[in-house]
Amino acid sequence: MREIDANEAERHKAKMEKRKAVQDAEVRDKTVEKGLLIVNTGPGKGKSTAAFGLALRMLGHGRRVGVVQFIKGAWHCGEKDAFAAFGDQVSWHTMGEGFTWETQDLARDIAAAERAWGKAEELMADPTIGLVVLDELNIALRYDYLDLESVVTALTGRRRDLHVVVTGRNAKPLLTEAADLVTEMGQVKHHFAAGVKAQKGIEF
Amino acid sequence: MREIDANEAERHKAKMEKRKAVQDAEVRDKTVEKGLLIVNTGPGKGKSTAAFGLALRMLGHGRRVGVVQFIKGAWHCGEKDAFAAFGDQVSWHTMGEGFTWETQDLARDIAAAERAWGKAEELMADPTIGLVVLDELNIALRYDYLDLESVVTALTGRRRDLHVVVTGRNAKPLLTEAADLVTEMGQVKHHFAAGVKAQKGIEF
Repeated sequence: MREIDANEAERHKAKMEKRKAVQDAEVRDKTVEKGLLIVNTGPGKGKSTAAFGLALRMLGHGRRVGVVQFIKGAWHCGEKDAFAAFGDQVSWHTMGEGFTWETQDLARDIAAAERAWGKAEELMADPTIGLVVLDELNIALRYDYLDLESVVTALTGRRRDLHVVVTGRNAKPLLTEAADLVTEMGQVKHHFAAGVKAQKGIEF
Repeated sequence: MREIDANEAERHKAKMEKRKAVQDAEVRDKTVEKGLLIVNTGPGKGKSTAAFGLALRMLGHGRRVGVVQFIKGAWHCGEKDAFAAFGDQVSWHTMGEGFTWETQDLARDIAAAERAWGKAEELMADPTIGLVVLDELNIALRYDYLDLESVVTALTGRRRDLHVVVTGRNAKPLLTEAADLVTEMGQVKHHFAAGVKAQKGIEF
């Protein structure tokens, strides 16, 4: 075990007392409660997984969660199976047709995005739902599959206590400007570059 | 619905055919399967939630998950309650004593970190576990509560198929150098700055 002397312990205590005073003041200043519009974007890993982690947190508090997957299609993913453990508490909708380079069909991609957005609007209108995850909506917006202004207007016009998380690379500035919380997942190092394949439980 | 003409559809198809060829070649080149050492760091939100989202993905594939919380203490968090739905599939250990400015006791913080690390080693040695989440381990390392070299040696010496996720700000370079996947969560915009308080389902 690391050795500490009485001086170090005393200095630590004094520093932490000051830190606590600052911290308490900061907490006191924050009084607003509201549903957040959250955007997870950037090239790094963790955009969707953080959204699903947040969904899990919400479920733990007994709230219902809605999920719309805009791009992912029929393929199997672990998170969907795991959420099945929560029964009706999760309303899950995989509405995509797969990656754009798999479908190779622009009209089909647009139609899928529009169906997904219709489902998103339905979930946002459901008063029993506390959080809606719009997974990869940014991709549909980036390729103009959906009208950006209409989507942002609907998101900002949602009911006041509803949290929404939007994921996907290249979030549009109009969306991030409207958001309360924007996180950019930056890729510092990725195992794909070292020849590691997509693995069960990690990528899907 | 957005109008597309035949030309645009054809150009899209040609572009996506090329993209698919590139994509397929990339997938072919990735053949390695191994347990990953993953680090989620940076000042932004999503480090722990992404780790818990990954845990969920692993649970959906029927694998067991171990979690050690190095800093968080007795207070209530939604993700812990949610993981209870998975019974014995999750081995959850809240080993912290709370934030350093709450304990104000260096010796106590160090002792808590050492107990937590002992639990982490126990979980990593358990062959039934596929993923271990070491939540906020970076904080314990940053304040030298644990010996960095011993921790990194134990992490890199883990069994070959075990995935480990380490979270927390200010990851040490020795750890990120040893990692397979490092994501820096960057804070673009945060609702605390707009006076919004910590809310159930979002921050805890």
